[in-house]
Amino acid sequence: MTDQPHNLSYDPHSRFPVGLPASGAWMRGHPVGRRRFMTVTDQRPFALEGGGGLAHIRIAYETWGQLADDASNAVLVCHALTGDSHAAGGIEIGHSADGWWDALIGPGRALDTDRYFVVCANVLGGCQGSTGPSSIDPATGTNYGPTFPQVTIRDIVRTQKRLADRLGIDRWLSVVGGSMGGMQVLEWGAMYPHRVKSLMPIASVAAASAMQIGWSAVERLAVVTDRDFHGGWYYDAGDGEGPWQGLALARQISQITYRTTHVFDERFGRDAHDPRTEFNQWGRYEIESYLDHHGQKLVGRFDANSFLVLSKAMDLHDVGRGRGGAAAALGRFRMPVLTTSVTSDILYPPYQQQEMHDLIEAGGGDCSYHVVDSPQGHDGFLLESEFLGPLIADTLTKAEKTS
Amino acid sequence: MTDQPHNLSYDPHSRFPVGLPASGAWMRGHPVGRRRFMTVTDQRPFALEGGGGLAHIRIAYETWGQLADDASNAVLVCHALTGDSHAAGGIEIGHSADGWWDALIGPGRALDTDRYFVVCANVLGGCQGSTGPSSIDPATGTNYGPTFPQVTIRDIVRTQKRLADRLGIDRWLSVVGGSMGGMQVLEWGAMYPHRVKSLMPIASVAAASAMQIGWSAVERLAVVTDRDFHGGWYYDAGDGEGPWQGLALARQISQITYRTTHVFDERFGRDAHDPRTEFNQWGRYEIESYLDHHGQKLVGRFDANSFLVLSKAMDLHDVGRGRGGAAAALGRFRMPVLTTSVTSDILYPPYQQQEMHDLIEAGGGDCSYHVVDSPQGHDGFLLESEFLGPLIADTLTKAEKTS
Repeated sequence: MTDQPHNLSYDPHSRFPVGLPASGAWMRGHPVGRRRFMTVTDQRPFALEGGGGLAHIRIAYETWGQLADDASNAVLVCHALTGDSHAAGGIEIGHSADGWWDALIGPGRALDTDRYFVVCANVLGGCQGSTGPSSIDPATGTNYGPTFPQVTIRDIVRTQKRLADRLGIDRWLSVVGGSMGGMQVLEWGAMYPHRVKSLMPIASVAAASAMQIGWSAVERLAVVTDRDFHGGWYYDAGDGEGPWQGLALARQISQITYRTTHVFDERFGRDAHDPRTEFNQWGRYEIESYLDHHGQKLVGRFDANSFLVLSKAMDLHDVGRGRGGAAAALGRFRMPVLTTSVTSDILYPPYQQQEMHDLIEAGGGDCSYHVVDSPQGHDGFLLESEFLGPLIADTLTKAEKTS
Repeated sequence: MTDQPHNLSYDPHSRFPVGLPASGAWMRGHPVGRRRFMTVTDQRPFALEGGGGLAHIRIAYETWGQLADDASNAVLVCHALTGDSHAAGGIEIGHSADGWWDALIGPGRALDTDRYFVVCANVLGGCQGSTGPSSIDPATGTNYGPTFPQVTIRDIVRTQKRLADRLGIDRWLSVVGGSMGGMQVLEWGAMYPHRVKSLMPIASVAAASAMQIGWSAVERLAVVTDRDFHGGWYYDAGDGEGPWQGLALARQISQITYRTTHVFDERFGRDAHDPRTEFNQWGRYEIESYLDHHGQKLVGRFDANSFLVLSKAMDLHDVGRGRGGAAAALGRFRMPVLTTSVTSDILYPPYQQQEMHDLIEAGGGDCSYHVVDSPQGHDGFLLESEFLGPLIADTLTKAEKTS
């Protein structure tokens, strides 16, 4: 086991690495925080579903709670597109925001860290410690950039399976995640059914729909048509010379799809950002200021090439590929499954989770399906913790009783 | 009256004007078709709601049917964001597509041109004959470009009122339109209540919502961050050197919001455009090819600066501005009103037309509200003619009986 936090000194004013591992943080000078690292590759490259392979893979992960002696209390949490391993905990070195599921993970919470050993790994292709396009390609000594191969959700799950092996976890008590995280959950059920006692794909889908692909595609187009994208070779460009406008625009688009007209009516209505410029072509409403803010925030923490690779990985998600279709793949599930919908979700609409439930049950499986009547939209999977908490806790209890 | 079609020879191979009026068509060499033109300005500039004015305005319009001697059978049709005056009729010189409401306008159709005199004018700020950013500014002899002032829906309606005056129409039997067209309809009711016998705002809204502003804003951002936008001065750039990528991206975004996940599932599903490149970052699904097509199509027929100005005009739409709010403005309506919703419309969701109805009725007005259960989304206002036809015909009959 080499899973110790790296000892790093952190100089926030430095743009250059301070003892930073190659894949610790995608922006030079950024600290790696409490992440631990595992090397996936050893003797031979890691083969990828779509062809080719990676000679060197590191996976960054975090854990909370204590692993039981019989390793029976481990839960894997899978993050969404722009998430990372920091699912729980506060702001700290290397983590500019609270854990994205902090309301659900911790002592006495649904994923009770007094009882469970919770693990979250940054996905392959990501930019928060795991190998991705911003990592150094050992073959060239420079960033992979656009030469990074297209990975799939299945590739991501295969790295997570290596992590389970490394941690000595024969069988997860549960694998849980929302959105792209839910795609990984489903692949765990299809690829390694004997390694999971229960599954919780939240606000997710059996196969990316045409509309989901459409949204991903326009967001990627926003990035690659940025004048400073330089075909993906922007890592050595000067300050401010990456595809930041394009990435920010992509985030602004997705941010709208994550929320709802109800939330925006309530929060912003028609408030002008500066009423003095109301009739000016460039005057802005508060909703525009909000979207700008979210765009800029992502630019400060996410790599554009990772965005492209992971966005495409989501489009490629189809639990039925090579398995005779989604009905056949989901119909083989025999572990308890929990899935949930948010009524107002326009990006992963309820009919998709309903269909997931129906296909699992049609095959003789056991799927519990719950809908929360909420105006939060897709982000409900992050925000509706009072709804999700008891359902997650119940599913874990059920899984503990399962042989 | 100077409203005769211009006699033009059309050379499709020429990029240069062939006897083309300054505001006949925004792309040099494009023919003006059957449009007729009216000059709005005479002795003094046309003052604009947001400040400033325009010294010279031409409005392009088309008509169908015969105006009755007492001018009692005239109906004004108002077009949406990227529409134009060609609401009815086939493909002809200057019109690359069938009329956008051809299924509803014509002999024996809902807007029966054997009975009614139907008028449709290209909006101020547009690019299909009416004065807009691509028109020549008489003060400089070159295109207005980004110096074109921000116009509002109220400015647009004031030009339409001049057209009514010119045509000798004291009172429209009805003013009808969907989406941005519906915004104009509502302003007719608020600005010139004695000039309209009935109103039909279809799939529209009393005031642009925060989410609608959000969508408009990201679409405008796509245009202005295009490297070839040149701050709006792209008219003299060489072939292929305008903000076409940005305008196409804007259209791709809006095209998704116009339709629904159900339509896309049905039409495209997960079909790959070329299965041999499935796992390639640049491989495309059919939905992407469809969106590309719509983006390119708009680039071929629409001016980016017009898009910016009209998109912002929609954001500025608030029938309650300066009138004590939407409830007060709509509560004064005394003419029969028809409004309709499409159940699956995510851009102008049904609650907005329901609210419009409620505010009109709360003030003592007469609003008929109908919902069509359709998967077509916002584009249902263009496509659901079997639903709209009888409702429009009934409203016209009702208006004819109104004193």
